Amino acid sequence: MEILAPCVILDKPQMAENIGAVARAMANFGLSDLRLVNPRDGWPQERAWASASGAEWPLNAARIYDSVEAAVADLHLVYATTARPRELQLPVLTPRVAMAAMLSEVQSGHRAGLLFGGERAGLETADIALSQAVVTLPIDPRFRSLNLAQAVIILAYEWRMTMETGAPAIFRDAPPPADGAAMLGLYEHFERELETAGFFHPPEKKPSMVQNLRSALGRARMSDQEVRTFRGVVTALSRGRGRVLEKLARAKADKPTDR
Amino acid sequence: MEILAPCVILDKPQMAENIGAVARAMANFGLSDLRLVNPRDGWPQERAWASASGAEWPLNAARIYDSVEAAVADLHLVYATTARPRELQLPVLTPRVAMAAMLSEVQSGHRAGLLFGGERAGLETADIALSQAVVTLPIDPRFRSLNLAQAVIILAYEWRMTMETGAPAIFRDAPPPADGAAMLGLYEHFERELETAGFFHPPEKKPSMVQNLRSALGRARMSDQEVRTFRGVVTALSRGRGRVLEKLARAKADKPTDR
Repeated sequence: MEILAPCVILDKPQMAENIGAVARAMANFGLSDLRLVNPRDGWPQERAWASASGAEWPLNAARIYDSVEAAVADLHLVYATTARPRELQLPVLTPRVAMAAMLSEVQSGHRAGLLFGGERAGLETADIALSQAVVTLPIDPRFRSLNLAQAVIILAYEWRMTMETGAPAIFRDAPPPADGAAMLGLYEHFERELETAGFFHPPEKKPSMVQNLRSALGRARMSDQEVRTFRGVVTALSRGRGRVLEKLARAKADKPTDR
Repeated sequence: MEILAPCVILDKPQMAENIGAVARAMANFGLSDLRLVNPRDGWPQERAWASASGAEWPLNAARIYDSVEAAVADLHLVYATTARPRELQLPVLTPRVAMAAMLSEVQSGHRAGLLFGGERAGLETADIALSQAVVTLPIDPRFRSLNLAQAVIILAYEWRMTMETGAPAIFRDAPPPADGAAMLGLYEHFERELETAGFFHPPEKKPSMVQNLRSALGRARMSDQEVRTFRGVVTALSRGRGRVLEKLARAKADKPTDR
């Protein structure tokens, strides 16, 4: 089976020079699928090509998305490179372990992506919540300001080291995981019903409640069948709640009040 | 024992921005000793500080040298990051193995350095010959143009990974190796005597003969005692040759020629 190297997803990259440097870093270690989510200054930008030192093919083929959700829709596995997120319960992997795990998945025919945040703001928790794990670099706590292309090249280097040394085959017997679009369909279905049920209370807590739910479900690495089952569960529960509410309403209507 | 992280030696760096980016990469993974050999545009240069994103301490403390030989004079172990050199017989290590080996040395109290060439020209073979091994990145042969700071950060990252995971203790029982100055003294002594002896023939081959001799001796990782012994050997051999020549000359003078 042909091995499909992971794609690199840059969320809201700011500087075209950095996008070019990322393309160069990818090319150094054999990655080529570049995805850009809302690049600040639009796309294409000449300065990206100027700073790629000839690594033009990832730029020429780059795809543009208007959300991380859209950029990961066809992926079965996404790892977000970021500092350990306090708000989410996600596995935190070193680049080495992450790439070994990712190679095993890719060897099973799954499509994988590496998600990076923009230069200043980094990744939003809601987007990290779309990942199955977080990759954290062993960076010196005294100086954490890591250049975007530098973060990319370390992952790309570990990818290639893993390819060359051979990854331990893990996850091999697991069923194929559902892709990002299927998971997003489940999330949105789930959240719609929870909204109707008044679950998101107080309303200002909804975003963090949503991302905690998403990261918990995402970690489960559900198969397509499991996603369908789970959507059936949500439907059943919400219809059931509907029936309960209906019954309560009927009971209330049938029974005269005290006054 | 306190562990002294390896220094980073940049030979003839061209762009001040790249020197700044190297400082930043070093700081990300806890390296701080930066050495510059003949920076093209002189030193200090404001643009280095501007591109370091606050990682100023390696720049502030950077030392300037007029040769690689001078820059490695106090080091016991130097690894050159470069493509595999065809002309030299040196071990070629991956970054991971190199940093594991280097940590073991540093844990024994030896001082170590990582040598990088300038942006365009890379390292000269004569300078690689001053190293005990070559570190080669597993770069894609289809795109070898690697940014200087990118090469540095991969080594720095592997250094830190090795520090955090613990290196296998190798070389522990070997005697402490002589430093670069001691080895250079031996090389020059040796070459001086070989020059006198007419060894470097034809003269245009001298540079490659010198670097082959140096890399062979350097690989031996001699102790100070062994360097002294070896210098004694050179002296004995050359004086011996002198005595032989003297004796021959005397014999010639004593004995009348045929005509």
